[in-house]
Amino acid sequence: MQLTAQEIDIGSRSPTVLLNTADAAELGVHQLDRVQIEHDGRISIGIVEFTDELVDPGTLAVTRRLGHLSGPVEVIPAPQPRAVHYIKKKLDDIELDKPELHRIVLDIKEDRLSDVELGAYVAATYTNGLSLEETMHLAECMAEVGDAIEWEDTAVVADKHSIGGVAGNRVTPIIVPIVAAAGVKIPKTSSRAVTSPAGTADTMEVLCDVEFSLAEIKEIVTETNGCLVWGGSVNLSPVDDKIIRAETPLSIDPPGQIIASVLSKKKSAGSNHIVVDVPYGEGAKVESLAQARELAEDFKRVGDHLGMAIECTITRGSQPIGRGIGPVLEARDVLETLAGGGPEELRLKSVRLADILLGSCGCAEDATEILDSGRAMAAFRDILAAQGGDSDVTVDDLVPGRHELPVAADREGIVTHVDNRLVSDVARRAGAPKDKGAGMVLHCRVGDKIGVGDSLFTVHAESKEKLADAERLVERSETIRVRSRDEALVELV
Amino acid sequence: MQLTAQEIDIGSRSPTVLLNTADAAELGVHQLDRVQIEHDGRISIGIVEFTDELVDPGTLAVTRRLGHLSGPVEVIPAPQPRAVHYIKKKLDDIELDKPELHRIVLDIKEDRLSDVELGAYVAATYTNGLSLEETMHLAECMAEVGDAIEWEDTAVVADKHSIGGVAGNRVTPIIVPIVAAAGVKIPKTSSRAVTSPAGTADTMEVLCDVEFSLAEIKEIVTETNGCLVWGGSVNLSPVDDKIIRAETPLSIDPPGQIIASVLSKKKSAGSNHIVVDVPYGEGAKVESLAQARELAEDFKRVGDHLGMAIECTITRGSQPIGRGIGPVLEARDVLETLAGGGPEELRLKSVRLADILLGSCGCAEDATEILDSGRAMAAFRDILAAQGGDSDVTVDDLVPGRHELPVAADREGIVTHVDNRLVSDVARRAGAPKDKGAGMVLHCRVGDKIGVGDSLFTVHAESKEKLADAERLVERSETIRVRSRDEALVELV
Repeated sequence: MQLTAQEIDIGSRSPTVLLNTADAAELGVHQLDRVQIEHDGRISIGIVEFTDELVDPGTLAVTRRLGHLSGPVEVIPAPQPRAVHYIKKKLDDIELDKPELHRIVLDIKEDRLSDVELGAYVAATYTNGLSLEETMHLAECMAEVGDAIEWEDTAVVADKHSIGGVAGNRVTPIIVPIVAAAGVKIPKTSSRAVTSPAGTADTMEVLCDVEFSLAEIKEIVTETNGCLVWGGSVNLSPVDDKIIRAETPLSIDPPGQIIASVLSKKKSAGSNHIVVDVPYGEGAKVESLAQARELAEDFKRVGDHLGMAIECTITRGSQPIGRGIGPVLEARDVLETLAGGGPEELRLKSVRLADILLGSCGCAEDATEILDSGRAMAAFRDILAAQGGDSDVTVDDLVPGRHELPVAADREGIVTHVDNRLVSDVARRAGAPKDKGAGMVLHCRVGDKIGVGDSLFTVHAESKEKLADAERLVERSETIRVRSRDEALVELV
Repeated sequence: MQLTAQEIDIGSRSPTVLLNTADAAELGVHQLDRVQIEHDGRISIGIVEFTDELVDPGTLAVTRRLGHLSGPVEVIPAPQPRAVHYIKKKLDDIELDKPELHRIVLDIKEDRLSDVELGAYVAATYTNGLSLEETMHLAECMAEVGDAIEWEDTAVVADKHSIGGVAGNRVTPIIVPIVAAAGVKIPKTSSRAVTSPAGTADTMEVLCDVEFSLAEIKEIVTETNGCLVWGGSVNLSPVDDKIIRAETPLSIDPPGQIIASVLSKKKSAGSNHIVVDVPYGEGAKVESLAQARELAEDFKRVGDHLGMAIECTITRGSQPIGRGIGPVLEARDVLETLAGGGPEELRLKSVRLADILLGSCGCAEDATEILDSGRAMAAFRDILAAQGGDSDVTVDDLVPGRHELPVAADREGIVTHVDNRLVSDVARRAGAPKDKGAGMVLHCRVGDKIGVGDSLFTVHAESKEKLADAERLVERSETIRVRSRDEALVELV
């Protein structure tokens, strides 16, 4: 069928073809079917949407993703991408083999699937699960379609990942310099916050640049043994973001997909010795110890298949780890810890994870010794310099938001709960992560004995308005719960 | 967060909000999250998509579905629609109750779900199935959100549905006038073809108008006892089309969803005595007798719950029923059959289904008698007149496409197979359903003895080009398979 094409910009990543309903009927295509468009001997495939208003009969509108198409084109129905058949197969609970998973990964990468098909894919992997074999193949396929770093003459490359959901869990900027100082390469990429008050990348951005190309990352790590950069500026596992986009609105996160997602990135980064931290508990991503153990076992098995040595740590994730929440406040914790002080739990967890990672890498050095001797701080400053930061930075250079709200206990008792979710929400209301100095500092931990008027936490903001905004949330919720020792009830509902 | 809104037309039914990635990060929303937009005291909820190009930081673009929004607006994150939680529940294989299904149906009707969520919904109902209870509730909820016809002072209202997939199965325009002539009301709505060469609505359109409002339909049926109209112009089950849009690309069609979809429309049409034809066999929608039986049983059970008497006929669907394929050619079959002639199988099947329907309605009349006496033809002509057609139409007025391709057997033997799919494809290539006279006429059926040179079928087209197009498909495929009686092989692969 001959039609006249025009380009339309609708902010869609998919190769969408808007057809007038009358033309679609003549072509015999349904909505979301594919059509093949031939233009000047060049062929592209698009996903059909109907419209009666946007395009007239005889014309069609295509999104940019289809290339620059205008003028007369020849349009015929085209088959669905092969991935759709394999998604259907997975919905039928039939295990997929590697070529089939490869096809799905490739079609997702090239944006060949409609959102309906993508929704069905994440639904199928969630409801029917991914077998260990499928998870292994998926991790490989997801790595294969991404860019990769090759480490010539380096047998051992370390890495670290945390499953997340815990506030103030900023162990990464402490572990990386410890490992680097021990002479082991650790090319660490991290995320930015979306719904949390700070990702590792946001915290590091207080101190240095975090956006680098793969070539630059390789240079930085070759020079300093480590890096602390934003993963979003490189293309290690391009399919991962697209899958997460579809999982997030459904709040589904199948274990197999988590494992494939994490390990595909590590594989592309050339890492082969990895510590994966699985915090569990109320408010964390993994809520029970049993789930944490299962996920850890699967991580190890899949890693084994991919030629990676994986150590999994199961840690308590029911309350924040550090004192500071928010980019600047967490960066202060990091600097203080590297200087030998810092919050006790942050120091302990970092050292423990670093020791396990070093052990796995066959390195006999002791993390505590590296930290206490100042070698970790020196390595950190090297990394800062390599990433364009001020290597002489001190805690005093990192200024918390100047508008403060101190919050004190209005009863005496024991701290029974620090709510990860509320801590995040209050810090975000205060302006984190965009306002780098915004967030909060916790003055107590679960188990601490508290008297009336004792300080529980302080909110910091860079503007009065945002502090007031945070204050409203603080007033109508209970971020830190103080109960007397003999109080049996958690809540009366 | 204060932003400036502008309207954008992207042919999307969803209430989409395009946010600049930087603003989205500050708001703390993911792609496909919801935001609440307040403008002049009016509140709307939109689905977030990110863009770096289409809108600048500080502004956002909204689709028309959100109403006319421009100028300063206040934007805050909003929760997902409740339907999403219930979809998640269904993915966890937990049975949904009526209020939950109602919420899903309502949110689909109002286009509140993203395509990812819709894909997950159809995936969940397919992979985890719909229980009988769920199917009942779904049918009720789908009917409740649609428009409805009330038949005052009429206890019995008949209807008819076929599961489809069989070419030339044009029994409806014969059954409806038989039932109407017997004095039973039958407000029949039908579909147009999408991938087939003709739907009942396409065939009827050769003879009269098919697009009417519910009020007009009620008037036509009150006057003539029957109608043969296009279901797409009324709003009996508005959610159905939206669900089918998501099912089609995945080629999934869960039995529960089929039943809910069919019966919701019948319920809205006020019908309470229904014959559902389930053709089965190679190439039909239902491929095995066991599947057909199960579907039929479920139809009856759900109908029972909805207060509908359902009779299910299981018929052979492995070859076309009538001789003509395509709107005009099928209309000729219909007129000939109503005149007492016509293809034997078409007559037999129509009479049998009509008898069963009349019996179910408590009507003692005999379908053969109604047909042979000419009363069915008279009722048909009344319906044509009421629907603005020529009530004196004869077969000779219906002219097949004048470009013809007769196809003859090149071997002798028995007809062992007439391929529904290929029959459809050839007829469509020839121009059906858009070119009303295009299609094909079959000259033989499975079991017929054929000699070399005997006529198998004739393709009709309204243009030489389309005839040539159909001829190319005929030449490289085997629409009608002729084999000698002693040939054991179907194919050698």
